[in-house]
Amino acid sequence: MDYFKNIEKIKYEGMNSNNPLAFKHYNPDESIAGKTMKELLRFSVAYWHTFTMDGSDPFGSPTMQRPWDQYSGMDQAKVRVEANFEFIDKLGFDYFAFHDVDVAPEGSNLKEYNQNLDEIVSLLEKQMKAQNVSLLWNTSNMFSHPRFMFGAATSNNADVYAYAAAKVKKQLEIAKELDAKNYVFWGGREGYETLLYTDTKFELDNLARFYHMAVDYAKEIGYEGQFLIEPKPKEPTKHQYDFDTATTYAFLQHYNLTDHFKVNIEANHATLAGHTFEHELRYAREHGILGSVDANQGDMLLGWDTDEFPSDIYSAVLAMYEILKNGGLGNGGLNFDAKVRRPSFEPIDLVHGHIVGMDTFAYGCKVAQQLIEDQVFENIIAKRYSSFEEGVGKAIIENKVSFKELQEYAMENTIKNESGHQEMIKGILNQYILKAGVPAKV
Amino acid sequence: MDYFKNIEKIKYEGMNSNNPLAFKHYNPDESIAGKTMKELLRFSVAYWHTFTMDGSDPFGSPTMQRPWDQYSGMDQAKVRVEANFEFIDKLGFDYFAFHDVDVAPEGSNLKEYNQNLDEIVSLLEKQMKAQNVSLLWNTSNMFSHPRFMFGAATSNNADVYAYAAAKVKKQLEIAKELDAKNYVFWGGREGYETLLYTDTKFELDNLARFYHMAVDYAKEIGYEGQFLIEPKPKEPTKHQYDFDTATTYAFLQHYNLTDHFKVNIEANHATLAGHTFEHELRYAREHGILGSVDANQGDMLLGWDTDEFPSDIYSAVLAMYEILKNGGLGNGGLNFDAKVRRPSFEPIDLVHGHIVGMDTFAYGCKVAQQLIEDQVFENIIAKRYSSFEEGVGKAIIENKVSFKELQEYAMENTIKNESGHQEMIKGILNQYILKAGVPAKV
Amino acid sequence: MDYFKNIEKIKYEGMNSNNPLAFKHYNPDESIAGKTMKELLRFSVAYWHTFTMDGSDPFGSPTMQRPWDQYSGMDQAKVRVEANFEFIDKLGFDYFAFHDVDVAPEGSNLKEYNQNLDEIVSLLEKQMKAQNVSLLWNTSNMFSHPRFMFGAATSNNADVYAYAAAKVKKQLEIAKELDAKNYVFWGGREGYETLLYTDTKFELDNLARFYHMAVDYAKEIGYEGQFLIEPKPKEPTKHQYDFDTATTYAFLQHYNLTDHFKVNIEANHATLAGHTFEHELRYAREHGILGSVDANQGDMLLGWDTDEFPSDIYSAVLAMYEILKNGGLGNGGLNFDAKVRRPSFEPIDLVHGHIVGMDTFAYGCKVAQQLIEDQVFENIIAKRYSSFEEGVGKAIIENKVSFKELQEYAMENTIKNESGHQEMIKGILNQYILKAGVPAKV
Amino acid sequence: MDYFKNIEKIKYEGMNSNNPLAFKHYNPDESIAGKTMKELLRFSVAYWHTFTMDGSDPFGSPTMQRPWDQYSGMDQAKVRVEANFEFIDKLGFDYFAFHDVDVAPEGSNLKEYNQNLDEIVSLLEKQMKAQNVSLLWNTSNMFSHPRFMFGAATSNNADVYAYAAAKVKKQLEIAKELDAKNYVFWGGREGYETLLYTDTKFELDNLARFYHMAVDYAKEIGYEGQFLIEPKPKEPTKHQYDFDTATTYAFLQHYNLTDHFKVNIEANHATLAGHTFEHELRYAREHGILGSVDANQGDMLLGWDTDEFPSDIYSAVLAMYEILKNGGLGNGGLNFDAKVRRPSFEPIDLVHGHIVGMDTFAYGCKVAQQLIEDQVFENIIAKRYSSFEEGVGKAIIENKVSFKELQEYAMENTIKNESGHQEMIKGILNQYILKAGVPAKV
Ligand SMILES: [Co+2]
Ligand SMILES: [Co+2]
Ligand SMILES: [Co+2]
Ligand SMILES: [Co+2]
Ligand SMILES: [Co+2]
Ligand SMILES: [Co+2]
Ligand SMILES: [Co+2]
Ligand SMILES: [Co+2]
Repeated sequence: MDYFKNIEKIKYEGMNSNNPLAFKHYNPDESIAGKTMKELLRFSVAYWHTFTMDGSDPFGSPTMQRPWDQYSGMDQAKVRVEANFEFIDKLGFDYFAFHDVDVAPEGSNLKEYNQNLDEIVSLLEKQMKAQNVSLLWNTSNMFSHPRFMFGAATSNNADVYAYAAAKVKKQLEIAKELDAKNYVFWGGREGYETLLYTDTKFELDNLARFYHMAVDYAKEIGYEGQFLIEPKPKEPTKHQYDFDTATTYAFLQHYNLTDHFKVNIEANHATLAGHTFEHELRYAREHGILGSVDANQGDMLLGWDTDEFPSDIYSAVLAMYEILKNGGLGNGGLNFDAKVRRPSFEPIDLVHGHIVGMDTFAYGCKVAQQLIEDQVFENIIAKRYSSFEEGVGKAIIENKVSFKELQEYAMENTIKNESGHQEMIKGILNQYILKAGVPAKV
Repeated sequence: MDYFKNIEKIKYEGMNSNNPLAFKHYNPDESIAGKTMKELLRFSVAYWHTFTMDGSDPFGSPTMQRPWDQYSGMDQAKVRVEANFEFIDKLGFDYFAFHDVDVAPEGSNLKEYNQNLDEIVSLLEKQMKAQNVSLLWNTSNMFSHPRFMFGAATSNNADVYAYAAAKVKKQLEIAKELDAKNYVFWGGREGYETLLYTDTKFELDNLARFYHMAVDYAKEIGYEGQFLIEPKPKEPTKHQYDFDTATTYAFLQHYNLTDHFKVNIEANHATLAGHTFEHELRYAREHGILGSVDANQGDMLLGWDTDEFPSDIYSAVLAMYEILKNGGLGNGGLNFDAKVRRPSFEPIDLVHGHIVGMDTFAYGCKVAQQLIEDQVFENIIAKRYSSFEEGVGKAIIENKVSFKELQEYAMENTIKNESGHQEMIKGILNQYILKAGVPAKV
Repeated sequence: MDYFKNIEKIKYEGMNSNNPLAFKHYNPDESIAGKTMKELLRFSVAYWHTFTMDGSDPFGSPTMQRPWDQYSGMDQAKVRVEANFEFIDKLGFDYFAFHDVDVAPEGSNLKEYNQNLDEIVSLLEKQMKAQNVSLLWNTSNMFSHPRFMFGAATSNNADVYAYAAAKVKKQLEIAKELDAKNYVFWGGREGYETLLYTDTKFELDNLARFYHMAVDYAKEIGYEGQFLIEPKPKEPTKHQYDFDTATTYAFLQHYNLTDHFKVNIEANHATLAGHTFEHELRYAREHGILGSVDANQGDMLLGWDTDEFPSDIYSAVLAMYEILKNGGLGNGGLNFDAKVRRPSFEPIDLVHGHIVGMDTFAYGCKVAQQLIEDQVFENIIAKRYSSFEEGVGKAIIENKVSFKELQEYAMENTIKNESGHQEMIKGILNQYILKAGVPAKV
Repeated sequence: MDYFKNIEKIKYEGMNSNNPLAFKHYNPDESIAGKTMKELLRFSVAYWHTFTMDGSDPFGSPTMQRPWDQYSGMDQAKVRVEANFEFIDKLGFDYFAFHDVDVAPEGSNLKEYNQNLDEIVSLLEKQMKAQNVSLLWNTSNMFSHPRFMFGAATSNNADVYAYAAAKVKKQLEIAKELDAKNYVFWGGREGYETLLYTDTKFELDNLARFYHMAVDYAKEIGYEGQFLIEPKPKEPTKHQYDFDTATTYAFLQHYNLTDHFKVNIEANHATLAGHTFEHELRYAREHGILGSVDANQGDMLLGWDTDEFPSDIYSAVLAMYEILKNGGLGNGGLNFDAKVRRPSFEPIDLVHGHIVGMDTFAYGCKVAQQLIEDQVFENIIAKRYSSFEEGVGKAIIENKVSFKELQEYAMENTIKNESGHQEMIKGILNQYILKAGVPAKV
């Protein structure tokens, strides 16, 4: 196999390297806080963007030049498997992730769908063993085919619902077979185009039913991976039910699904919902549902999902801070749900994109770990909230007072706030970022 | 009392009137679906915007000319009470709503705070009885005073928490005394300016504690009004915990508060959160937490809360549709949380603003009722979802099938979707709107 | 020809009709201000959305069911011509508009491109004469093909620039042959993806050169239609040079192109740029560059170009107000650059979409004309600015005073502003909208 | 004077310093490209934010604790002058900037206004000489006072126009007296709240007249500083005429003002207009109107002007790149139009805010200079556009070809684009940023 010609295995050469085809910060076996970077970061290749994305957009035709585009159908699918594992090998990944239709042609009916998948899955399985690579997650694409124009598990058409069930059933079997660490639902059309013709309650009830069936079926076949929902507020539909992490958590609670589901948080989906990436990670972490991460970035001045490779160090630092505070991602990983820009049409651009993404998160990880080691934010927070460690504050958090006692206390007391010093803290953050590259004094 | 000089009681003159000081559509005693408009719409005056808003903005000084601005302190507070009831009388309101600091000076300590309130509340009570006016809701302003710079129930300062408790305790007593239909919490600074120094979990736990104490105290004093939370995503803080209705519902469930709280939905807050007004109403309605409404509108091209008087008929129709489908608002009402534009500085502009708001919602109510009577959307929806009324669809909603049966079914079945005809439906909506003004053929 | 089966010619049936396949407000021969609606509104079919749009989006495959999709290549192109004229006939259009690639396959080289176009253009010409239909405008698609990935007239590749020139040359010849009222440039990729590798000045200079060459060539061949630029801020590129009307006007002035170019304003492009539709129309009108209009609407909560059929009466009223104040659109018209929603996949939805668009603008036209007849805004404005009709105000606008005289005047004078009464004015606007449907008292 | 107690002169201690009250990157006398940082960066204190901003926001009262708040009126104004020069001394500034009303109470009429200013200006002048400090720019606040509710030079009220003229006249005299490097116009209310009552053409004509009068008066009194307009799209008004740099440039050209005006670009205004900071700088630079910079940053998820102290290194690098490519800012400088967050209420927070801002821009300057020295982007661009250096490309930019020759060329030629490699370039940018802090190998 040789789809990424003239590209050697990407090596760590350190930050003084000028070689664009080398890692400057991602050193897989380097230890951070007792774990290797590899173990901490769990980078994953997104099969769709890397092996099927063609560069088309709503106003333009495909641009991408891919060696496998001389093939089609199952031939192409097989070549893509090879390309995937060559790419994984050259970049040093341990994980990848896919939708059903990324790896095999959907076929014209479910029988063909199942057959195509069976054939490809056995190739994947073989190569996964050969290269010691794992499946971070698989999922079922239930948004591209026209049958899903009104959604899948939230379609108004019971036949579509059944078809979606058949697809997820198959994917769960594959997840079991390939030992997928997680199984993901992204509800790309689980939402509405207009409230005028939509029975939202009916659709949400049906969606919950669908998730319960998935949980039941996983149990039945003994699949023990983690179920994940990936929130996104809109696009392609006007409104998607899994708007953001909080909305998803409201849904999970309402329908008794919190024991079975966590979230897969994508940076660009966070910002489209009006939140920072770190906000979504924080919310998920503190509610016990941080499952995995789609590592990319959006353009804050554009109103659609640009899925850019992550290159912003600030964002990576604050994301890794949440992930490290979470004790890592467990079954999850950092999956590059990112695509090269339309005019970056050569295969080598896929390499560049992943290198910048991996280096950015590796650097972010170092900085975040240093911030935690030095207890920078922890000390600031401990000091800020210290009034709750004794007296009335302690009584409050121990649920020992009511409005009456608090009123009595407040009548007698004078309030003094301390400045938050946000500007100073931002300066400290900058220092941690800029100094992380500086070799320690010998 | 004569603060709105030369302004007579505003009367309904019908849509052919050119009198700017007359209702064209709001006819309080006209019957819609068996209730009078008055009963259905439950309009409320927002004390703050109407009697205390001075026209200042972040770049400008006050502009408003108000007869009561020749007074100050408690004198001014008393005059405002008179102005409020004159206004209520002239516009024909049955309800009003206030924050503590709208009606009485906050004073320099809690003792003064309580005293000032007691004095004003007795005036309010007397006049409410005299004019047969009710209090839609009261609330405590816990965002304007510098002590609340880091929030109230989510402050890092226990003393601030206690102070906030004392304020709400007093307000609940007033709610009881004045028989407030609801008690509202808007968490204007319950959120964060930066995650860098914020312990979000600690703050949310404390917020929930605070709400439980409020529920307990209400029970203790026998206050039986409805508790409401008013979601808003941001402004003044960078992020507010009650981002939108779904986020608020996630919180209520997580902290076992669903039995005690509903939401007060503001149109402008909905759009700031990336939702339509009707979306928020729908979500609340279908989750059983639609409590009350702050009727205003935002400017979709501006990123802050403009709190404009509602004049958009489309929005009013779709809002009233949700409200009528909810069986009305129960304890709630349509509160004009709206302010005149800064250059609309004369007292008469307050009258104009409320007239346009009341007429807009009255018209919206008529159209919505007609849509429901004719079962326009209901019929479309019944047809669209009919596949769930028999066969596999029925089995799905009766929880009688699993992925296996659905797969079997899907293997044998062919899918056919029906067009959504959204464009046609929008045309029908326009017809209902434009025809509602046309007198029926005699 | 019978591509819109079972659909009769759409007739005006008045606002009491419940026939979805009838105009409720658009009565082509009805007179408004001395002109027929037909003459005033100059509706145009957008060939691309109506005959080539397939319903695909970034996350989904085609959904549209079109009778002409059983054909391909030139056969399909010819069938589309027939469908276009059948549609034009059934809806009663006088105009249509197209990109080169809408009407004929682009071919694999310029020779084929020219040949294909020649064949189709003769068909168009024949049918235009037969049905007395005009071409509102044509244009060259210089954004879809991968060769234009970096732009056309702003490409970094001189060969692409030359190719673009060849395409526009051909289109101008077609414009001449078909007597196109206008020739449009929409710079879909004339902009940048990143400043990091872009020489913006070089590109803008080249763009201006290109426009001058177009002007020269039009002169050479005797084409006398109006050149138009269609502003759009972003999408598909991160930034497009013709961001909005003001930016375009800055460009036209800087490069001495104001004598030759006007703008084609699209509603959805206006809102994506942070402006209202009416703002863009007003700016263009007052700077003498209002050329034509792409009549559609966006979703104010979505950050991409949704190109919906216009159904918002408010927007149509305020747009038509600007157009009527402009003395109409001259060579321009109201072109429905709008597409049916992805799940509105039947041919009849194209009819519904255009009916709602035409009715909306017809109604808007009636209301706007009434507002102008009654001089509603004109009177308000005359009063508001009356201080400039005499004294120091008059001296100012006659350029008779300098800072010195103004200072002297200001030292002695006291300022008194009048309220803007915006709320009252919005109520009046609502009355004009809601009353326009009511038959005059007999 | 001792308003910033216990704060010593801020010194450069290098990036390994942990002293929050030291510069880590700003080393005033360090040479970059042959100039000292001091000369290159020309940092300026914004008088308003630093000495008059009280921490109030639309939902909250003042929070700031300022030593000068024990004074009022002219006493306070004088103390602020002292505080300004103490602050300038301690932080090492060479420039400051002010609005008239920042430095002296506006008084109740123009006579008082002039007197107050005269008294303060003489204090400023004395101290400027004593400390060798210059005035970067002054301006007249024509947006805060209620008289300007409809604008100043675009007011509908001629008396307001005259008053504004009197204010600017006085400010130009002060600019002359204090040798202000620039005179700025920010049209905070030069725009509209609603088109419904606004004659935009009338207002723009009047605005241009006003600017011409200013130019004339400057000439008359021999003031030779640079006139600047500061664009902002909205806030406080719904729409401001100087929406962005391109809109402002359209205006300047239309009204023959390009010889006299440049722009003052604020980062937060750029993003509110939908542009990056570097986009606005680039546009201004390439059109010859880059005058000065308001160095701050916004929150990309908030829709209002947050005016935060700049701390984002990326933004500073790309801004400094444009500034260095411009050959510096000429008369302009980097003015910190930035305010501490509301809960950063201590005087020391002003120091922290300026330190982080100065360090951020100093670091950005170093990185940008290195990028230019290494010709990183220049080489990429030279290669990308090389097709215009010979053959048909050269003929194009030399205006030697028309559509005919280009068509002929295109007929014979085959197009080949090169990948843009945007992802690789972003990786290179990251390397330049992260390595700039690393001491050179000895
Ligand atoms: Co994703
Ligand atoms: Co995405
Ligand atoms: Co509200
Ligand atoms: Co509001
Ligand atoms: Co268009
Ligand atoms: Co469009
Ligand atoms: Co500024
Ligand atoms: Co600003």
